[in-house]
Amino acid sequence: MVSNEIENLINIISKLPGLGPRSARRAVLELLKKKESFGTPLIKALNEALSNSIICYLCGNVDTRNPCQLCEDPKRDVGLICVVEDIADLWALERAMVFKGHYHVLGGVLSALDGIGPDDLNIASLMERVAEGKTREVILATSATVDGQTTAHYIIDRLAGTNIEITELAHGVPVGGELDYLDDGTLGAALKDRRRV
Amino acid sequence: MVSNEIENLINIISKLPGLGPRSARRAVLELLKKKESFGTPLIKALNEALSNSIICYLCGNVDTRNPCQLCEDPKRDVGLICVVEDIADLWALERAMVFKGHYHVLGGVLSALDGIGPDDLNIASLMERVAEGKTREVILATSATVDGQTTAHYIIDRLAGTNIEITELAHGVPVGGELDYLDDGTLGAALKDRRRV
Repeated sequence: MVSNEIENLINIISKLPGLGPRSARRAVLELLKKKESFGTPLIKALNEALSNSIICYLCGNVDTRNPCQLCEDPKRDVGLICVVEDIADLWALERAMVFKGHYHVLGGVLSALDGIGPDDLNIASLMERVAEGKTREVILATSATVDGQTTAHYIIDRLAGTNIEITELAHGVPVGGELDYLDDGTLGAALKDRRRV
Repeated sequence: MVSNEIENLINIISKLPGLGPRSARRAVLELLKKKESFGTPLIKALNEALSNSIICYLCGNVDTRNPCQLCEDPKRDVGLICVVEDIADLWALERAMVFKGHYHVLGGVLSALDGIGPDDLNIASLMERVAEGKTREVILATSATVDGQTTAHYIIDRLAGTNIEITELAHGVPVGGELDYLDDGTLGAALKDRRRV
């Protein structure tokens, strides 16, 4: 009953993260009903974003220029490299406005299960950046998951023998978090790393 | 830190029903990372669906032709009109493959709160269709909400004095539904309309 064009659009939209077939149908209906105010601007925005965006060859961020704004920013500390799994993590840190160094996006984590090895990630390019000698500290901001920590340890091994300081994000109680909702690992880490007030 | 083009795309995508700012960012990243396999096909599909889709002037369905496939289908019973709030409801009934009559999409429900009166809905066109004399039965399939039922009653009033049979969907226990999750109203309706087995 739905035309092929609409069916096809529903199929593609349902592949967006966070959407399923039902919400994709609702989204497509919305786009079709509000063609002028919603559908057409979406096409325009997609065209502009896709045709102008490239992956920064230095850090792996996505931007309209290459190297990206962050890599080009002279106010950022070139001695600090924060290693993240994904561009989304970089965006999250930027939103928090707490970091004024450079980033390096791995593009994933090591995973024996998914067959992702060091060559599938941007690890060689990290080593090249570090080898230039400007780096003082590498902050490993991979996820606190098994794969994220495996990846962090792999990078620690690869950086062994250099003078670079290697750090990781602190574990603890999330700001605004309630204790009784926290898992044992986080509680243990928060207690172990307790600070004098 | 995110370019204007990307920010703009995130803004528009976050307006899709079911998506918020966070999932919109994830969706946009996915589209940017998989430009060839995901982003470009989405633009193509959007273009095709939007440029070919029109609202059927008879029933209010969206299709690539006008009148739509459903209105044009000679196998459908022209004497039956099922009145629904939204195209999504029409699609839901079509997926269920249980109805072989014609539809009429109101485009919403009467709502004093939102300032939606009879003239904002496709009620006049329903009256015109009914006035042609081919209609035997009007099935009111508006939602079982206050506004949906108000709308149904308004249509019942408007159809008063014609010979047309007016029906509504049955209330009761959803197929596959568990009794202790059901609200009192549904349980009451199911009990009141109980059937001999």
